[in-house]
Amino acid sequence: MTFDQLWDDLAAVGRSGSTGGYRRYAWTPADATLREWFAAQAAARGLDLVTDRAGNQWAWWGDPDASGPGIVVGSHLDSVPDGGAFDGPLGVVSGLLAIDALRASGVRPARPVGVVNFGDEEGARFGIACAGSRMVTGTLPRDRALGLRDGDGTTMAEAMAAAGHDPAHVGRDAETLRRVGCFVELHVEQGRGLIDLGRPVAVGTAIWPHGRWRMEFAGEANHAGTTRLEDRHDPMLDYAAAVLRARELARKHGIVATCGKVAVEPNGVNAIPSRVRGWLDARGADAGAVRALVAELSQGREVHEESWTPATPFDTALSDRCAAVLDGAPRLASGAGHDAGVLAEAGVATAMLFVRNPTGISHSPAEFAERDDCLRGVEALTAVVTDLVTGPAAPGPAVSGYSA
Amino acid sequence: MTFDQLWDDLAAVGRSGSTGGYRRYAWTPADATLREWFAAQAAARGLDLVTDRAGNQWAWWGDPDASGPGIVVGSHLDSVPDGGAFDGPLGVVSGLLAIDALRASGVRPARPVGVVNFGDEEGARFGIACAGSRMVTGTLPRDRALGLRDGDGTTMAEAMAAAGHDPAHVGRDAETLRRVGCFVELHVEQGRGLIDLGRPVAVGTAIWPHGRWRMEFAGEANHAGTTRLEDRHDPMLDYAAAVLRARELARKHGIVATCGKVAVEPNGVNAIPSRVRGWLDARGADAGAVRALVAELSQGREVHEESWTPATPFDTALSDRCAAVLDGAPRLASGAGHDAGVLAEAGVATAMLFVRNPTGISHSPAEFAERDDCLRGVEALTAVVTDLVTGPAAPGPAVSGYSA
Repeated sequence: MTFDQLWDDLAAVGRSGSTGGYRRYAWTPADATLREWFAAQAAARGLDLVTDRAGNQWAWWGDPDASGPGIVVGSHLDSVPDGGAFDGPLGVVSGLLAIDALRASGVRPARPVGVVNFGDEEGARFGIACAGSRMVTGTLPRDRALGLRDGDGTTMAEAMAAAGHDPAHVGRDAETLRRVGCFVELHVEQGRGLIDLGRPVAVGTAIWPHGRWRMEFAGEANHAGTTRLEDRHDPMLDYAAAVLRARELARKHGIVATCGKVAVEPNGVNAIPSRVRGWLDARGADAGAVRALVAELSQGREVHEESWTPATPFDTALSDRCAAVLDGAPRLASGAGHDAGVLAEAGVATAMLFVRNPTGISHSPAEFAERDDCLRGVEALTAVVTDLVTGPAAPGPAVSGYSA
Repeated sequence: MTFDQLWDDLAAVGRSGSTGGYRRYAWTPADATLREWFAAQAAARGLDLVTDRAGNQWAWWGDPDASGPGIVVGSHLDSVPDGGAFDGPLGVVSGLLAIDALRASGVRPARPVGVVNFGDEEGARFGIACAGSRMVTGTLPRDRALGLRDGDGTTMAEAMAAAGHDPAHVGRDAETLRRVGCFVELHVEQGRGLIDLGRPVAVGTAIWPHGRWRMEFAGEANHAGTTRLEDRHDPMLDYAAAVLRARELARKHGIVATCGKVAVEPNGVNAIPSRVRGWLDARGADAGAVRALVAELSQGREVHEESWTPATPFDTALSDRCAAVLDGAPRLASGAGHDAGVLAEAGVATAMLFVRNPTGISHSPAEFAERDDCLRGVEALTAVVTDLVTGPAAPGPAVSGYSA
């Protein structure tokens, strides 16, 4: 199968007719269609499909239980609200095509090769990014995960069960981790780094420290026409001030901060809101600067941390090996979180490859990558995997589950 | 039937279990339940139920087509999102009880008496307040009304049809207007006027000029972690600045302005929004001041007028007669719009009675009225109707449809 065939398969799944963006949220019908597609791709290649305790899908060429841990590639298929086509699926499609290329060139792997489809990477529905990999590594504890609620009040446990995955299985999954010798995630770049460098592919260095915070603004619902200004407790004013303050602090600290999501109750034109909830996303190269922004923004405001991820370096030896195979590809840090970062935190030897984004636009229906650059990405991933399955054993420390 | 019985009937309809507020939106199942309840109340009293071209319900004691125009009381049963129990229903319930009281005291009306349930007064679903009365008077033109869309993209025509009302009937309804000699709407007060006056009931003088505007902020969707501040076009910042500016201008002009509703696309924590829409509600005693605020707020912003209603005085002779019957009840202007205002604009002789609101809170689950004050309201309305059906013919000009 060609890149174009695989890409065309996915083009219509979960796409909004009005915006052209994707709405592929965890444990929805669109998600189920993507999982079925992944299972069919595994079957078409004679790969063994394993669904782990958190619902992530692993397609294995070779048996990591019998032959020892394997080389894993892949990414995720879910999306942010109105996301683009490339963020996630490019890594999964490239992983499948790398296996096709290895086989076509007659490579006989010395160790197993796996392609993973991590579930719920974007956290669009339940608010926690990389939920699939975090559940497997245990950094998202089982009870917290299962109790998370979507905007309609449905818990993750209920959503999983409705989609046919038994939530009773959720929990740290040492057996799954034990199979992963190393993980190389290919992903479309989400900024303008490769444009500036004039190169199609880069090797990742680290993921910036980043977090999400929820800001709560309480008010008193009242009639917009009959309540004097001096009698009002209008939380929309407090929210507006916080949005502007967050930008001011981001500039001061040399980091990025975003207020992209807000929920207003009751959200009526002629009603002073009773409550406004706003979310803050903040990241930067320096964790101290991100922490300082949040501390200053919290003065006089109710701010709750929903997630925090420290700076996550990828495995140096593995990344150096990727760069050597790719003839001195440039190195880039990532402002975005990835499942590769979650696995790296858990001690898995992890590297990332980034494919050029010609506009720098991400998390938008306008996200794009040139077909030629995508094909260069597949070639790069194929070269890296070929080296890892035919050369010396992959570097990297054993994870605690693996050493057991 | 007693006040308590009627009130208990309505208590559960369209009530949110989580907030305790009401969500009674036009042409929804909750709305259908309220319409069925109103029809049953009419039937129980032997009143003739007429549904007009816009779907408003009229319950007649006597035949206004045969005996000439009647005295109409009533209000609406729909609500804002998470509204209170009294805003609207108090006027409908009081109207039904006034008929009961007239009959119990043996009054023989010299002219017909009607109770009206206006549909879609709050405009919570389609964005236009007083849609039911505006369609009948023609101030909301048929094509504009039917093409209005709710948050899910459903048009009013589709919603009406789904609820069993043929949208083909919608249009200015001269036959319905001809039956209305005068309209007295009882309503819970939505501010603190009667608290300050220490009185349970007031007679209305006028409705403030008021309007709704939609503010459009265009941006560029992008990733919250990977897009430099200087590369961003973040419309949430523009929205926040507009919210704060609207309050500043309201103070400057001595009026009220509210940003109670916002819609963000895609509304994801880690996505810079592609678009923010915010709504402005502005009102005041002086139309020029309201207009000045909007003009200043529109500088450098895209602001669309969704509705505008000039100051609407109620009929002086009718209001004086109400006040005389009520032994010199105090007079109050209203910052809130009402169907009585729409009818007054259209030339119907109209008056309002307000019942004390002990907290001033409105458009909130916490909205309240004391039972004793509600009963005083029923007594006041009964006294006014008794006078109007037994004394000299009601004052007020004929509407154009009526004179035909």
